[in-house]
Parts: sequence; structure tokens; C-alpha cells
Amino acid sequence: MSCPYGRENGVDTAQQGKNLLDFGGITYTSYLQLHKILNAQTMMSTEDGTPVHDEHLFIIIHQAYELWFKQIIYEIDSVREIFSEEEVDEHKMLEIVKRMQRVTLILKLCVDQFLILETMTPLDFIEFRNYLSPASGFQSYQFRLLENKVGLRGDLRVRYNQENYMKVFGDEPEVCKNIMKSEEEPSLQNLVSRWLERTPGLEEKGFNFWKKYKMAVDSILTQEYREAENEECETLRGHLLDQNKRRRELFDSIFDARIHNALMARGERRLTHRAMQGALMISLYREESRFNQPHQLLQLLMDVDSLMTKWRYSHVMLVQRMIGSQQIGTGGSSGYQYLRSTLSDRYKVFIDLFNLSTFLLPRNCIPPLTRQMKNRLSIMEEMEQKEEELKVSSSPLLSSSKVAVPASESQCPRENGDEKTSSESDLEKSLENSMERSCEASM
Amino acid sequence: MSCPYGRENGVDTAQQGKNLLDFGGITYTSYLQLHKILNAQTMMSTEDGTPVHDEHLFIIIHQAYELWFKQIIYEIDSVREIFSEEEVDEHKMLEIVKRMQRVTLILKLCVDQFLILETMTPLDFIEFRNYLSPASGFQSYQFRLLENKVGLRGDLRVRYNQENYMKVFGDEPEVCKNIMKSEEEPSLQNLVSRWLERTPGLEEKGFNFWKKYKMAVDSILTQEYREAENEECETLRGHLLDQNKRRRELFDSIFDARIHNALMARGERRLTHRAMQGALMISLYREESRFNQPHQLLQLLMDVDSLMTKWRYSHVMLVQRMIGSQQIGTGGSSGYQYLRSTLSDRYKVFIDLFNLSTFLLPRNCIPPLTRQMKNRLSIMEEMEQKEEELKVSSSPLLSSSKVAVPASESQCPRENGDEKTSSESDLEKSLENSMERSCEASM
Amino acid sequence: MSCPYGRENGVDTAQQGKNLLDFGGITYTSYLQLHKILNAQTMMSTEDGTPVHDEHLFIIIHQAYELWFKQIIYEIDSVREIFSEEEVDEHKMLEIVKRMQRVTLILKLCVDQFLILETMTPLDFIEFRNYLSPASGFQSYQFRLLENKVGLRGDLRVRYNQENYMKVFGDEPEVCKNIMKSEEEPSLQNLVSRWLERTPGLEEKGFNFWKKYKMAVDSILTQEYREAENEECETLRGHLLDQNKRRRELFDSIFDARIHNALMARGERRLTHRAMQGALMISLYREESRFNQPHQLLQLLMDVDSLMTKWRYSHVMLVQRMIGSQQIGTGGSSGYQYLRSTLSDRYKVFIDLFNLSTFLLPRNCIPPLTRQMKNRLSIMEEMEQKEEELKVSSSPLLSSSKVAVPASESQCPRENGDEKTSSESDLEKSLENSMERSCEASM
Amino acid sequence: MSCPYGRENGVDTAQQGKNLLDFGGITYTSYLQLHKILNAQTMMSTEDGTPVHDEHLFIIIHQAYELWFKQIIYEIDSVREIFSEEEVDEHKMLEIVKRMQRVTLILKLCVDQFLILETMTPLDFIEFRNYLSPASGFQSYQFRLLENKVGLRGDLRVRYNQENYMKVFGDEPEVCKNIMKSEEEPSLQNLVSRWLERTPGLEEKGFNFWKKYKMAVDSILTQEYREAENEECETLRGHLLDQNKRRRELFDSIFDARIHNALMARGERRLTHRAMQGALMISLYREESRFNQPHQLLQLLMDVDSLMTKWRYSHVMLVQRMIGSQQIGTGGSSGYQYLRSTLSDRYKVFIDLFNLSTFLLPRNCIPPLTRQMKNRLSIMEEMEQKEEELKVSSSPLLSSSKVAVPASESQCPRENGDEKTSSESDLEKSLENSMERSCEASM
Repeated sequence: MSCPYGRENGVDTAQQGKNLLDFGGITYTSYLQLHKILNAQTMMSTEDGTPVHDEHLFIIIHQAYELWFKQIIYEIDSVREIFSEEEVDEHKMLEIVKRMQRVTLILKLCVDQFLILETMTPLDFIEFRNYLSPASGFQSYQFRLLENKVGLRGDLRVRYNQENYMKVFGDEPEVCKNIMKSEEEPSLQNLVSRWLERTPGLEEKGFNFWKKYKMAVDSILTQEYREAENEECETLRGHLLDQNKRRRELFDSIFDARIHNALMARGERRLTHRAMQGALMISLYREESRFNQPHQLLQLLMDVDSLMTKWRYSHVMLVQRMIGSQQIGTGGSSGYQYLRSTLSDRYKVFIDLFNLSTFLLPRNCIPPLTRQMKNRLSIMEEMEQKEEELKVSSSPLLSSSKVAVPASESQCPRENGDEKTSSESDLEKSLENSMERSCEASM
Repeated sequence: MSCPYGRENGVDTAQQGKNLLDFGGITYTSYLQLHKILNAQTMMSTEDGTPVHDEHLFIIIHQAYELWFKQIIYEIDSVREIFSEEEVDEHKMLEIVKRMQRVTLILKLCVDQFLILETMTPLDFIEFRNYLSPASGFQSYQFRLLENKVGLRGDLRVRYNQENYMKVFGDEPEVCKNIMKSEEEPSLQNLVSRWLERTPGLEEKGFNFWKKYKMAVDSILTQEYREAENEECETLRGHLLDQNKRRRELFDSIFDARIHNALMARGERRLTHRAMQGALMISLYREESRFNQPHQLLQLLMDVDSLMTKWRYSHVMLVQRMIGSQQIGTGGSSGYQYLRSTLSDRYKVFIDLFNLSTFLLPRNCIPPLTRQMKNRLSIMEEMEQKEEELKVSSSPLLSSSKVAVPASESQCPRENGDEKTSSESDLEKSLENSMERSCEASM
Repeated sequence: MSCPYGRENGVDTAQQGKNLLDFGGITYTSYLQLHKILNAQTMMSTEDGTPVHDEHLFIIIHQAYELWFKQIIYEIDSVREIFSEEEVDEHKMLEIVKRMQRVTLILKLCVDQFLILETMTPLDFIEFRNYLSPASGFQSYQFRLLENKVGLRGDLRVRYNQENYMKVFGDEPEVCKNIMKSEEEPSLQNLVSRWLERTPGLEEKGFNFWKKYKMAVDSILTQEYREAENEECETLRGHLLDQNKRRRELFDSIFDARIHNALMARGERRLTHRAMQGALMISLYREESRFNQPHQLLQLLMDVDSLMTKWRYSHVMLVQRMIGSQQIGTGGSSGYQYLRSTLSDRYKVFIDLFNLSTFLLPRNCIPPLTRQMKNRLSIMEEMEQKEEELKVSSSPLLSSSKVAVPASESQCPRENGDEKTSSESDLEKSLENSMERSCEASM
Repeated sequence: MSCPYGRENGVDTAQQGKNLLDFGGITYTSYLQLHKILNAQTMMSTEDGTPVHDEHLFIIIHQAYELWFKQIIYEIDSVREIFSEEEVDEHKMLEIVKRMQRVTLILKLCVDQFLILETMTPLDFIEFRNYLSPASGFQSYQFRLLENKVGLRGDLRVRYNQENYMKVFGDEPEVCKNIMKSEEEPSLQNLVSRWLERTPGLEEKGFNFWKKYKMAVDSILTQEYREAENEECETLRGHLLDQNKRRRELFDSIFDARIHNALMARGERRLTHRAMQGALMISLYREESRFNQPHQLLQLLMDVDSLMTKWRYSHVMLVQRMIGSQQIGTGGSSGYQYLRSTLSDRYKVFIDLFNLSTFLLPRNCIPPLTRQMKNRLSIMEEMEQKEEELKVSSSPLLSSSKVAVPASESQCPRENGDEKTSSESDLEKSLENSMERSCEASM
């Protein structure tokens, strides 16, 4: 190949630099395949000889939605893939969080995008809606895929949807196969649930978080009960006792696996019993380095749920504005009514994370981590330094105050203090195991 | 007073100009009364000796909400005042539209503001929520006022709210008085309804829009029925006939005042029968100059409704995230459950405007305006010019094509053509009445 | 064709209704041509065997931008077409406003969309940017088209852009032709300018707004001068006189057509001298029915300008984040530096509308409209009623107070009162011309 | 005190529960001190007898801004406090990130808030701006505090601001004292800089990141040079050599501390030389657990900078819209011109983080972490497991491929392979040090 720059006779500007790099390269237009993207808008009204101005927006906005759905599915799939590993490499946690953050930003944009579609008035819409099949208005293959991949359970779909949602794709075998596959493959919800089950600290022969948590709850409820009993005013006493009883029932629903499983069967809970324990543990000890990213992830999963519901809600409102919600007579299940029903909590995939807040404990009642447990959740060097200090220090009591709220400061009712003993023996063990401390100052 | 600038020895910079103006003037700080605004954050947790970092945000964000509620009420009140006049001056329409536009932008911001509050996690909230009375969490006097002033009907509030919403303010007589007043005074919804009743064109001895509209609907439904009858396929025929019957029933609900009033009593419709006609007329003839602003206003009223519901929805989701939604046992009406119930259509004040879309007609079926009616809705000069052209033109057919879709082009079923005749005689009348045409070119 | 519904054996559900309508209709997927849209993402890094996760987002987001650019161009073109008419039909004003409102919402979305792209960190970008030609990163054919169609003047583009922006499209003759065409065709800015020149009221043999405006300004400045002269404090007097002189120079720049034209030549003003007068007139009398939509349009044009600049600004910040802004040595015009230069006011197409605020008058100094002028700007019926009232009223002075601020109330310095006389004779003329008043109540 | 519930006769509803809790508690209104917040709006125009509707918005929106500024300062202060510690506790990193995330959300809201203020048109503003001192329009004590606390360097303020910004507060000694203090105290930028200097891995007697980084850069540039030299086409060769030279100069500016310090003195760089190395290290190894939160923090600091600039930009545009930008004559420094000048990069406090992207390396050229370094950055348990695997595995080479890109896969030019040797010895050292592996499965 001859030198492509010969003809430029040595003229060199700053911009040529770029042109040089461009040489032989791909153009913006071909890279983005704009011949496809920008030639995919055929207005049915125009085809029919009576162009309706607003149909153009209708097409463009739906295409933009589909592009974003593709991106969301791409991110969700990538996260699902990472979670499919038997063990999630800690080095991938940041990336997972970043991808889910991106998903929430995209969903936020998708919600805002409705503001643009609302500039189309019903009188505009009426002019071309006959060209479209109204039933499938906003139903899209990718949106179904997305719902399934995130983890919407088939049996929780509202009846119409549950029975029919495949029918719409009846004549597209490829599409049907993919939807079926998305139903069968583990969803993000499933994978997160399994991952939560592996939360370090849940092991019964070890930290045994669940036992400690139950004890803490029991202490709180018992003390609450005693205080109620001692209330002199009869009405107030009655009320407080009643309230205490109800709180106990509520906690029983997570302590008793059978109740939990029954709620799961009904779709009111989605995480397994053990996963719920993991989620609770992460929430309570989120400051530990190892739980930083997992905690952020749990927040983001709620955001995703929340935004998908907001998207549905904005959609419902748009439909009401475009075609009305009022139906007289038997007609019943208008698009509006169906869509409204998808706003129920059954469509919230990570409902348990929202409900987790019911089961949180005040900070001073949270069972302190043992030294070993603390080790397992910390940055290595950080821990080593702490232990180094312990060695140097002649007063173990003083230094232990740095890693756990000492019983004396705690206002949480505590029935027995035997935790501390085991914590101390852990301490000794880890001291023995401590690695050579690096000489450099930490951050 | 001595010359305040003497001491500056004639030093003059561009900035001094401003300082000159400032002289003796009010400062930014005192104008905004920042000593009040910025000294109104007392953290209960700090008072109690255990500062919880996130309480500060909790206070600030609620105060920001209250500031915005005050602004919204201020705008709504100003619009209500204009609409309280027996006749609304056309010169005020732009201002009304601008103020309602502002209200929608503020509401949008209020919805987005929840994203900030969502950065508070339940574990943070649990630390200071005991200092607050949870029931009143987001209940605010101004929000109740706002609901009433916009037009939420007391009997449509969900039961808890309906019975109790005053109780919370029991010990503040001033507040109670104002809330009572806001219930008794005509709401924005009432005033808009009355204004819509006065829509020009509704008069029976005149354009008589309702008669024309009914005829148009009847034509459409009759033709639809005929086509259904002629369908050869029996199943399809049955379906089409059934559908036609249902559509007729639906239209009967606005044609028959008794049905409409019954729906009003149940709160499923809020506009009076005549107001509904006005709203429909404005929607169908929105291009007429006189209906431009009214049309924009109707859109904005829907936006307000829509955004208030989105605000409520975001609030529900936040509450679910902060305190959970799951209740076992009898407890029932948690804050979450109550709040969720306010998402129903009963809280949509301008529900009729959303439902209007059901009753719109395709453009080619909209009854043409008579010349006189066209006159009444137009900019004066504009109309005069049109008429001038008519005078000059020797072919009335040609020029009439500019103001109304001629029957021949229309694809709308039309039973008789007598409209045109009256339109032509209107034309003659207005020609006689036409004012001297100004010589200047119009825009 | 056999009856397609026979096999369903009369089973009829609400949903079948929809399926019936769907029959033979177009599907969602084919309507949106999703086979094109969703098969247009080819990651270069994947092609090269080393997939970089974030390239997918990079493609999708640019495609989404291009979709929206297409929609904006579609709306701008439609508005340009309406404005290309010799006279703009008042019935189209609402539609124009709605379309421009939509454009602003889309641009707002495009600005927000950057938040998503910012989730890509430079380390991600570095992995695949070599596959792309960096120079054309965000340069797109449609964006250039958009700039030209809105009205960016070629000679105001920064040098690099001005000389080279066509070169990038060198090998695509169709593209080049369209860009050339977009440069030659009247832009939105041109068309709006011409339309503003036709603002009713500018005619010298008529209302002669400009003469009245100049007189008002002169009165204000003269009074200001007198007050300055009477200031006892010498320093303050000097300052005030100086300030008055500068304000006079500023106003001269719009009074003196030569100065204005000189500024136009330099690109510091873009509206013609007469168009500027029109814009000023609309701003001052925006409450008049006829100016309602034009006023809203002028606001929206500023919004478009403002949002396009915000888009450019967000872009600059993204580029800085992705590739850095710091350049040592001669290299100079990095992408960052070039992009930053496009933030200058030269890229603001409707700069004059922003600067208009400098030339507004306090309400009490605005020259009152004559009765005839008032007529020309009003809804017909509205005006007639006012005149009817005049007939009934025995006191013309009283009623005239309804249409213009009476001199006594005005705090504006007024040198002579002869305006009122002409106003009164106008009044008589229009009374003679008044049409038969319709009997119906107005809104 | 008598039992307050006696009178209720045992009537118990779900809501009473809340009322019980409310008993004796604080009300919503008093908690939020709404008597202050909602009684702080005094319209000057109303005081003057000529109420201007829009002044209310003007007051409210500024008060809302001030509330948010207070919240941002509160968050920034809390983060500064944490960073003031000699060593930042890893347990606080999540909280730091969360608070900075909150700050970005608030700033985003503040930017969006301008959309509301833009609904005020200049003609509205002109009516009451005389009551205000224009110079201080948006200047607020808290905004200056914020700028200082984030780290805007006094000598980089544009001249007017630099000299005068204290003068505006001249008569408020308390305010002046606080502003002075904010100038003297270490800013967020300072503290972050110091913290970055402590980044583990920078120590020369240890991992010595900087040496490794320099070697990697040198390899890249040398190989680039060789390739350029071998280019046959003369023009291209010249260009490539020139480009290589410029890149080398650019890298020299961070390699040579004197150049860096010179740039710092001019305000073009703000991080110290060592802090810059820390920031670079975090960016390159962000996947390591210990760098997860630091990496997120660096992103957020850029977001803060970016959003503050967007806020300033929106402000500039608003001012242009309200009072115009055009000034004829000497006047010069209008508010608009001054504000525009604050958009320069000198006001970007974390400019170095943006520019960091220039110095990033492609992933395959990033120096691999030694085993010891890897240890220091990892979650303890994670590392132990890896080492356990190593013990089990008989092939150290195979397993080492899990922690560092093996040379064979790398496409990065590497001059010598001695890194690997040291890496292996590190490996052995850490194997000796490895702690007893816990039996539980990790996540």
C-alpha cells in the first residue's frame, strides 16, 4: 500500500493528527450502524397517506426504550454470570456494584422519558392508534425478558399476564424459546439469594449470627414486656402488652422457618430463610470492609425494584391519559386496569430487602462481632495493625473497646455476658496467627 | 446625612456601582431572614446526647418540602383568586398557565427530592425515629391544606384519614380553622369546573356543541353497528356487535345526565355535566386561539394530579424501605398500608380530564365550527382578514375550505349535511358585521 | 379466506377483543423494526477477541442520542415549515409551542443522559477507545444538521470546526449535500426573525411601537439624568451621571440601526433590527391574547439555546473526565480545548432574546396600547364585550381605565400626554366598527 | 398525672397505637420549627404597597438553596472531620462514600432547581429587583463557606472575587470570622490530598509503585518510539515521532516533581506530587477490596466538582436571561461577565482527578501487584483461601496466574522480567506467614 499521506505534502495541523488516527478506521456512522438505527422509522399513518405528526415521536421513544432495555439486560446478564460462580471473587464486587448503579441510572432515565411521551395528547394519539394493535402497545419481548431475568416469579404475575403473556409471541419461536429460557434460568433474585446464603458468619459452628440475633431480639422483647407489665395505667398497659405480643409474632415469622416458607410459597417472601439471615447480617455489620460492597448492592437492588415500579406507575398514568380508565359495563380488564394490578407488591422482586427494616436492631443491641469474625470481614493489613497494637498494649480491655461496644456502654438489654468470653479466646487465637506486620503506614 | 462616599476618595471601580446601590439597602441575609431559616435545625438526638448524623438531613429535607408546599399553595391560591371572578379576563390566561406550569416544576422537584431521602438507610433512621412521633412522619398541615385547595373531596379520603386527619391538629385552633376553611372554600377543582361550564359554544341557543357532538357520536356508532351487522364471520360479528353495544353504554354515561350525576355522587366523576362538555369542547377545538391557553391549562391540571400521585407513590416506597410493609396479625393499618390506599383514583382530583380521552373523536368526525363560532374563538384581526379574503374572492367554496374541513374530504360518517347551510348563513351575517380591515400585514 | 375465529368455538374473553383487533395487524416488534434497532450493536473489542464490557454502553448511548437527534430535527423541521409560510396561521401557534416544548424536554433528557455515560470510568474507556477514531467521538452528522437548522452561523463556528467540519464527512456525498443544504436553507433563527419583523404594531403608519418605546426610554433616562444632577454628594453624583451615560449608550445600540447592524455583522446580535423590535413588543405586551403563544415561543427558544449549551457543557466535562484536559507543549487543540470553545456566546443562536431583558421597561412605563391596537391583539368576542360595556357606560374615562394604566396612577416619567388623545380617537373609531354583540356569556 | 387513656373507655383502634406514641411527644410542626421556616417570607414589594407576585418564588427558592447549602456543609464537615484523623479507620470508608453520594444528589437537585427559577421572566424580575441589592443576588455566605471548605484556593478566585468577596460581609463580624476560619482550616481537598499520600504501596522500601509505574510508561513510550521510527511513510513517521515526543513531555510533567510543583504553584495542579501517585495507584488497582471505597470516593469528588460547575453554569445562564449579558462601553464586569469567569478550570478543585485519565495505562500494562501487596489490599479471609489453594496446588506457576496477568498473555511491552522474580519471592514469604485457614465457605 502506498503512503497515504504523500499527497498532503507535509501540511500538518493539530487536527490532522486525528485524521491520521482515523486513517483506515471505522467511521462514527458505520460504528454505530446508523444506517439501521436511523432508517427504522416508518410511520404507518404516512404509509396510509394521512401522516400524523406525533406518530414519529411514538416510534422513536419506543425504540429508545428498547435500546435501554437491551443495555439493562446486558448488565443484568453480566452480573448474573458473575453470581453464577460457586464463589464470587471479591475483586468483582466493585464491578457488580458499578453495573447495578448504571442500571438504576438507566431506569431513572426511562422513568423521566415518560415526560416526553406525555407531550402527545390523546387527540394526537387517536389519529394513529388504529394503525397499531393496542394490546401490545407497551408490551415488549425485552421487557418480559427483563422481568424474568430480574426475578419476577411466573406464578405471581397477575392472571391475564400469567396465562397470556407468551401468547403474544406465539408466532415467533425464537422469542418464545428465549422467554422460556429466561424463566428457567436462575434469575438475579435466585442468584443473590444463594449468594446471601453464603454470607460469612452464618455458620452454626462458628460465629452463628442467627443464634446471637435471636438472643438479642429476645432480650429486647422480654424487657419491653416487663416494662409493659409494670405500667400502672391499665389502658396503656393493655395496649403495650398487645403491641409486644404483635411484635413477637412478627419476629416469629422470621425465626420460625415454617412460617417463613409458607410466606415464600405465597410469594410474600422471596429470599430463602438463610438468605434472609445473610441480608440481615450484612445490613447490621455493613461498616465491615467486606460488607461494604454487599451492602451497597442490597441498596441498589431495592433501587432497581423501586424504579421498575415507578416505571410501571408512570406507564399506567400515561395509559390513563391516552385512553382513559373509565369502563362502564362488563368490558372490565382495560389496559389500564391490568396495568394497575402490576403495581402490587407481588411484582416487587426484592420485597424482602424492603421489609428487612422491620427486623433491624438499634445499634447498641447489635451482637458484637467476635475477633475472629472481625478478622474475616476486614482488610488484612488493617486487622494486623489492630492486633499489633494489642500486643503492644498491656491492657486488653482498653484495646478491645476499639472493636466492639463494651457491655458497660451498651443500653441494650442483655441477658448474659458469655459472648465476651468466647470473643476473648478468639482474640488469643488470632493473635497467635497474626502475620508479620508490614512497616509502612497504612492510609 | 453626610456623603457616604467621601471616604472612598474617588476610587471608583465597576463593582462600586453595586455597592452604591446597596447603600442603606437590605442584605441578602436579612432579606431571606436566614437567621430564622438557618437556626431552625435542632436535632433531637443531639439534645439527647447521642447525635445521629442522619437526623440533620431528615430535618432539612422536610423543611425544604414545607417551603415548597408554601410556594405551591401561594400559586394555587393566586390562581383560585383569578378564577373566583365571575368572568376570567383573557389577559390573565397566560399568567394562570405560567403559574400552573411552575407548580408542576415544583412538584417534579419534590418527587426527585425523595432520591436524597433514600440515602438514609433504615439502620440510620431507627437510631432517631423514637424521638419523633411516627404517625405524623410526613403528615403536614400544609399538605392537607394543599389537598383541600386543589380539590380532594373530604368524603373520598380513605376512612382513617377522613375521620382522623383533623385530630392530629387538635391542639392548634388556628390550624384547625384554616383547614376547615380550606374545606369550605371553593377548591381549584370547583372553580375550574364552573369556568368550564361557561365555555363559549355550549349555549343551546347558539352553537349548541353538545347537540352537534351527540349527533357525531351517534353517526359513528350507527355506522360501526352497520358494519358489524354486515360482517360475514359469525364470531367476529358477535364480537363487534358486543363491542359496539358497550361503547354506546359508555357514551350514554356522559349523554345521560342522571348517570353522570350518579357517578359524581360516588366520586368517580368530579366535573359537573356541563363542565365536562366544556372540557370536551376545548379539547376538540384547542387550535382556536381562544382555546389555546385553556387547553394548556387542562393539560397542566392533569400534570398536577399525576405528579401529586407520583409524590405519594415515592413516599409510599420510602416508608416501605424505612419501616417495612409486612405486618403479621391484626395490626393492619400500618403507615404503609394507609399510604398505599391514597394511591387510588379517588385521590385524583382531575380524573375526568384523564378520562376525557375516551370520548374524543377522530379529527375528521369533529363537528365543524360555524363561522360565527369561529369568530368568537379567534384573534380579531385574524378573522377580519379571513373575511376580507372572502369578500375579494369570487369563489366562496375555495375560501371556506380554509376554515372547515369540507364534507367531501371528511371520512366521518355524517347523516345529514344541514350543518353547512347554517354555517353559510352565519358567514353572511358575519360579513355584514365585519369591521374595517386594518391595512397592516398580520404576523 | 375462512373465518379465523371459527376454531375458537365462541370462547370470548376480554382479552380476545384485543386479539381480534390485532388480527392481521402489525406486531410491536415489526412496527418498531426491532430487528434493525436491536441488531445494530457490534462491539469492536469483541470482534477483536478481547471484549470490553463497557463498549456496549458506549454504543447504545450514542444510538439513543442519534434517535433523539432525529426526533428533534423532525420537530424543528416541522416548525420551520410552518414558519416558511408568508403568514403564520394563528391556528398553528399552539402546535408550534407544543413541538418546541417537546424539543426542550428531549434536550433535557439528553443532558441527563450524560449521567449514565459518566458511569464509564476512563480505565474502561482506555480499553476500547483505540478501536474508535477519537476525533469523531461525539461528532455526528445529525448534530451538525441540528446546529445548522436551529441557526448556528457558519462564520461563528470556532475556527477548527468552521474549516473542517465538512471534511469529516468527505466520503459521504449524500451527507455532505444535506449539510450544505442545511446551511443554505433558512434556519429556525432566520424564520423566527422574519416572523418577528411582522409583529403587529410595528408599522410606522399605525401603532408605531418603536417611536413610543423610544419616547418612553428617553423619558426614563432624562428623569434619571435630572435626578443624578440634583444629587448633592459629589462622588455619588459623578457615579450616577456616569451610569446614566452608559445606559444611554446601551440603549443607543438598539435605537441606532447602524450600531445594531455592526453588532450583527460581528455575530453579537442575530435578530434583525426590526425583529428585535418585534421581540421587545411581544415581551412587553405578552398578556394580550395574540401574544400569548408568541411569548411562550420566545421563552422556549431560549430554553433550546440554554439546553444545547448545557448539553455541550456536560459533554466537555465528560471528555475531560475520560481523556483529561491537560496538554503540555504545542499540541494545543485537544478535543477538550476545542469543545470548551464552543461554549462561548457565539454558539447561542437566540442570544438576543437573552439580552432583551436589558431593554425591558418597568410595567408602569410601558406605552399603553391604543384601543385599535388592543383590538388587533384580542380575542374577538372579548373585545366586543368590552366595547359593549363602553356603550352602556356613560363615563368613558372610567371604562378606559380597564384597558390602560391611567396616567395618574403611573409612576413613569412622561413628558407629554398626547398619547391619550390619539387613544381616544381610536376608541371612537372602534366603537363605530363594533359588531353585534353575541348574547351568550363569555368564559 | 392521671392516666390519659381512661376517658377512651377501652376503645382501641389501630391508629390509637400511634396516638399513644405521640403522647407527650413533639409535634411535626414544632420539630421542624415551622413557625420560623414558614414565617420568614416578607415580600419587599408587598411592604412597599405594590406586591409583585413572583417575588414570593424568589424568596422561597433562595431559602431552599440555603437549606441545602447548610446540609452540604454539614456533610462536608463531617467528612473532613473523619479525614482529619491521622489514620482513617477503614470502617468509616462506607460512611464517607455514602455522605459524598448524598452531597452529589443534593447538588444535582440544586442544579435542577434552576428550572423553577427560570419560570420567572425578566419582566417579572424587573418589577422587584430594585428592592434588592443586585450585587449580592446569589452571593451567599454559605456558598463562600462551601467553596472554601471544599477547597477553592483563595488566590485562584477571579480578581474581583478574590479582593472583594469578604467586603460584602464587612458588617457581620461573626460571618467574617467563619469565612476566615474556612480559609485557614484544611479543606476537603487538602485532607484528601494528605490521605492519598498515605496510599499503601507508595513506599519506596516496599512495593514502590512509582518506580514500577515509571518503568511501565517508559516501556510503552520506547516501544511507541521504535514503531514510529520503523514507519516507512515519511509523513506518518514524522507525525508519530512528534506525537511520541509530546506524550513523553506530558508524562515528564508528573515524573518530574519540579514541573509538577510549578504547575501546582500556578494552580493548574492541586494534589501534591505524592498524592497524585496515590490517586493513580487507586485508579489502576481499584478492584482490590481495599481500594473499592477509595475509588468510589475519587469518582464522587469529581462529581462534586462537576456539579458545582454545572450549578455555576446554570446560574450564569439564568443571570443572562434575567438581566442580559450585553454591555456597551467601559462598564465591563457585569454580574454576567464575572460569573462566566468562575466557570474556568481554576474553580475546579479536583481538576487532577479529571486529568488523571491522561496518565492511565491499558490494563495489560499495569504493573502486577506483588503477593505481599495483594495481601495488604485484600479481605483477610479471601487472601487466606487463595494461599490455601497455593499450598494444595503443586504448581505455583499455575496458581500465580490467578493473581497477576502472566507475561505471556500481556501485550504490554516489557523491557525486563525481573518483576516476576520479586513477585515470586514475595509469594514465598507470604506463604510462610499464612494463617490457619478457617473452615467455613466464603461467600
